[in-house]
Order: sequence, then C-alpha cells, then structure tokens
Amino acid sequence: MSVDYAQLVKTGIALTDAALERLLPGTATQPHNIHRAMRHSVFAGGKRLRPLLVIESARMIAGDLPDGAADVGAAIEMLHTYSLIHDDLPALDNDDLRRGKPTCHVVYGEAMAILAGDALQTLAYETLAKLSGDAAAKIEIVKEVAIATGTGVGSEGLAPGMIGGQVMDIEGEGQKPTAELVEAIHRSKTGALITVSIVAGGLIGGASADEVMHLRRFGQRAGLAFQIVDDILDVTQSSAELGKTAGKDTASDKATWPAVFGLDASRETAAELLRDGLAELAGFGARADALKAVAKALVERTN
Amino acid sequence: MSVDYAQLVKTGIALTDAALERLLPGTATQPHNIHRAMRHSVFAGGKRLRPLLVIESARMIAGDLPDGAADVGAAIEMLHTYSLIHDDLPALDNDDLRRGKPTCHVVYGEAMAILAGDALQTLAYETLAKLSGDAAAKIEIVKEVAIATGTGVGSEGLAPGMIGGQVMDIEGEGQKPTAELVEAIHRSKTGALITVSIVAGGLIGGASADEVMHLRRFGQRAGLAFQIVDDILDVTQSSAELGKTAGKDTASDKATWPAVFGLDASRETAAELLRDGLAELAGFGARADALKAVAKALVERTN
Repeated sequence: MSVDYAQLVKTGIALTDAALERLLPGTATQPHNIHRAMRHSVFAGGKRLRPLLVIESARMIAGDLPDGAADVGAAIEMLHTYSLIHDDLPALDNDDLRRGKPTCHVVYGEAMAILAGDALQTLAYETLAKLSGDAAAKIEIVKEVAIATGTGVGSEGLAPGMIGGQVMDIEGEGQKPTAELVEAIHRSKTGALITVSIVAGGLIGGASADEVMHLRRFGQRAGLAFQIVDDILDVTQSSAELGKTAGKDTASDKATWPAVFGLDASRETAAELLRDGLAELAGFGARADALKAVAKALVERTN
Repeated sequence: MSVDYAQLVKTGIALTDAALERLLPGTATQPHNIHRAMRHSVFAGGKRLRPLLVIESARMIAGDLPDGAADVGAAIEMLHTYSLIHDDLPALDNDDLRRGKPTCHVVYGEAMAILAGDALQTLAYETLAKLSGDAAAKIEIVKEVAIATGTGVGSEGLAPGMIGGQVMDIEGEGQKPTAELVEAIHRSKTGALITVSIVAGGLIGGASADEVMHLRRFGQRAGLAFQIVDDILDVTQSSAELGKTAGKDTASDKATWPAVFGLDASRETAAELLRDGLAELAGFGARADALKAVAKALVERTN
C-alpha cells in the first residue's frame, strides 16, 4: 500500500472541521451559551477518526468523495461528542478533563452540558435529514445511526448500541467481568459507532446491499479491535503517552479485554480481528487501500 | 361541531399507548434498567396531547388514519418524555414528582435518567426512520422534528426549537421578563413541538406544501395559546386542580405571559390565537372538525 496516512488524516480533519464549522450555530447565535458549550466540546481537539472512516468508506465506494460524506462524518462526530459530554458528567464518569481541557460541565455547568449533549444529538439528525440526494439512502443512514447509538433495539439482539454499552459498562463496574460481558460492552459502546461510520460512508457513496454487508463485517471487526487496543494501551502506556489518565480502567474495575483474557491474548485477538476485517475488503481491490490504511493505523497505534 | 372529544382522546391514548408498548424494548430486554427507566417515564400517565394532534392532523389530511400516524405520535411523545426527564434532573428543575409519581432520576438514579432521556431521543429517530411508505415524506418528518426540538438552527431565526427554549427559560430565571423573551420561550419550548406534531401528522397523511403551510400556521397559534393557558392556570388554579404544584412559575420567577401582560390580556390573547389558528383550517371544511375540537379543548381546559 502506497497510502500517505498522515495526509489522509490531515485531509479528513480539514473536511470534518469545515463541515462542523458550517453546521454548528455560531457563538453569536441566540441562545449563546448552549452554542458555546456545543462548540467547546466539538472543537476540543478530537482526532476525527469516525469521520475519517466515513470519508474513506464513501470515497472507496463512489470512486471520488461524494457530496454529503463530510456532513455524514460531522453528524457522527456530533453523536460521539454528545456521548462524551454526557459520559463526563458528575453522575456518570465524573471527568473534569478530556484531551487536557476542562470538560463541558466544568466550564458551562451541568445543566448546560446536559442540554448541549442533547442538542448535539438533535443536530446530528437534522444534518442527516438535510443531506442532498437520494431520500432512501438518507433514511437508511438515519436508521443505521439510530440503531447503532441506541440501547439494543436493533436487529441483532447480541449487539446493542452505544447507550446500551454505556449502561452495561456502568452496571458492570466493581463486578468480575466475564468474556461475554466485555465483548458485549466493546461491540456496543465503541464498536457500533465505528461500524456505522463505515456503513454510513458506504451508503452515502451508493453502496449495494452486498457492499454494505462487507463494510459492516469489516467495521465490526475493526471496531472491536480498536477498543481492545484502547484497553491494552490503558495498561501499557503512561498518561503522558496517552494524553489522558492511564490505568483508569483498572482503577475503576472496568470490564476490559486484558482483565479477562490477559495482555498477550488481547494483542493476538486484535491482530486477528484486523486481519479478518481487512479480508472483508478483498473484493474492492486497490480501491480499499486508504480504508485499510486507516484500520491498520487504528489498531497499530501507540496512543 | 358534533365531535365527541372524550372519545377522540380515548382513541388517541389507546393508539399511542399500543404503539409505545410495541416500540419500546421490554423490561426483560438487556440492559434491563434503562428500559425500565424509559418505560417508567413514558407510561407515567401522560395525556398524549401531542400524539393526538399528530393522529387527528393525519386523519384530516388522509381522510382515514394513515399507516404510521400512531408511530409518528409515539416518536413525538418519546421526545416530549426525554425533555421532561432531563428537565426534572437536579441540575435543571430538580423535580422529584411529576403527575404525582416519582421522577425518573429519583427511582433509577441520575446516570440512568440522563441515559434514558438520551435513549428516548434516539429511539424517536429510529422509529421515524423505520416508518413504512415514502422515503421523502419520512426524511421531511425527521428534518421538521429535529429542527423543532433543537436550539434554533431552523430556518426561522426567531423561533428556535425546544432545547433553545429550555436554555432561554433557565437563563431568564430571576430576571424581569420582557415581552420578546416570554414569547420566544413559549414559541420554542412548548410551541415548536406542538406545531411539529401537527405538521408531521399532515406529512404522514400526504399533505401538499400548501396544506403544510396552513397546518404550520394553525400549530404555531394553537401552540402559543396552549402555553399561555398553562401560565394562566398556574396562577389561577390550585395544586389539586392542576395535579402539580400551582404557583411554581411565580415562585421561581419564570418568564410567564401573565407576569408580563397581566391575566386579562393573557386570556384575550389565548382566545385570539385560537380563533386565528382555527381560521387557518377553514379550507379543510368539516374534515377539520376533530382537529379543531382538540385545539379548542387544549385552550379552554381548566387543568
């Protein structure tokens, strides 16, 4: 693969930030404070990994970057940000810092942080509904995104969405995690949004049902591998390397992959999932190189 | 008008509750607690006014109750319920009781109440995306609903959505309310969701652009009148008559219509808005009788 990954990331961030800048109301728009709170968290220096997956998946399917791909990525980033804002609240993880900056509720208060999270979820759906192009593809994206971020109402009973994973994560704290629980949490809490980023990118690019199936299988494997690597890094890296508090999962007795399976087996599983995931993209030939490079980078990262 | 209003309400509640029962995951669905929390608040005895507006608007346009109208009503009720759950949180209004029952966070804790509200918003969009029928109508409903419940990104700068109204309401507390502020809060916090109920009902019924325009104008007037009446009742009725704490708005210095304009002018304005709203339905002839009866009942109610 002759893909310049650093360039892909740079372009992905630029496209995503431009879309978010355009889609989020300005801080001069009434009521001011909620728009300031939304922007505070959306522009807190995220790596825009999910939008990058949307963009490269869309580009692979359509051959070139299709209209609306950056907006779909921005909508998914809004959903990711809303989940972080609510996760950080005192009643949940009670985090004062994220990416080295004070969290939303620390700066704007709890009430505004709750409402800013709510509003980012709302704005994500407004953004998806306002995409130009085929209404059927748009409604399919709304459906996929809602299922992936919900509690588990989806077609696959075993893979609830992001909120379902969050609930299992909270309820599992302090209990000895089982293999089933940690897999269910990882697939839903992180995996579902990563998977739907790839699927939604395909849909905005005009993917066929068969292509969507392969994208979904790729996404499920890459998403799970991503979270396993997150768990591994939490154990093996220092806080300085991670840019966040290391060892926090262990300290709070979170259900993690290494806690259940050990570090070596975790590394093997992540590598296997990546290999199996990449194999799903075989039919796309060299067109899949960029998307493959993103997946590899996510799993082989060190922070 | 020979409409049996009590019968309309009974049918509306039955249709809505059946849809909600079918759409909300059961309490035996993992993770249990969030589904219990969602059902606790959704089935806490709401009057289902917004779904009733959806149903009667859809019925007027389509001639008979169209497929999906009850589900659109259920989706809007989920959004209404999510806003109540988050409003009641300690960081916002800090209400322990609603409709005489303990609020969501009192029973399930703050973390679960935040996530249950989040999940109801998500499930509303999943519900809308899964409607059968015309994709263009569905995506239009998603767009209208998202704008009506957002912060003010809509096409009308003067009428932000539900969350925008909530923010202005919180920020306005303790300040002397102006006529502009109280109108902006009422139009957005309550009026926008009532208006979109009527518009979405029309859309699922197949309304033309001209019909949607009249429905929207009717909804804006009925929605504002509804909230003015709410303010009047807060001043004039006892807690027992209201089934909630009377005088709470005054006690917390909320921006209310009577506080700015006085009781008599408030009553006149509500009656005028109702009259102007009903006039928008003139073109529908006798087909509008049921929808008119609902609007009249909302404005002429005593609790």
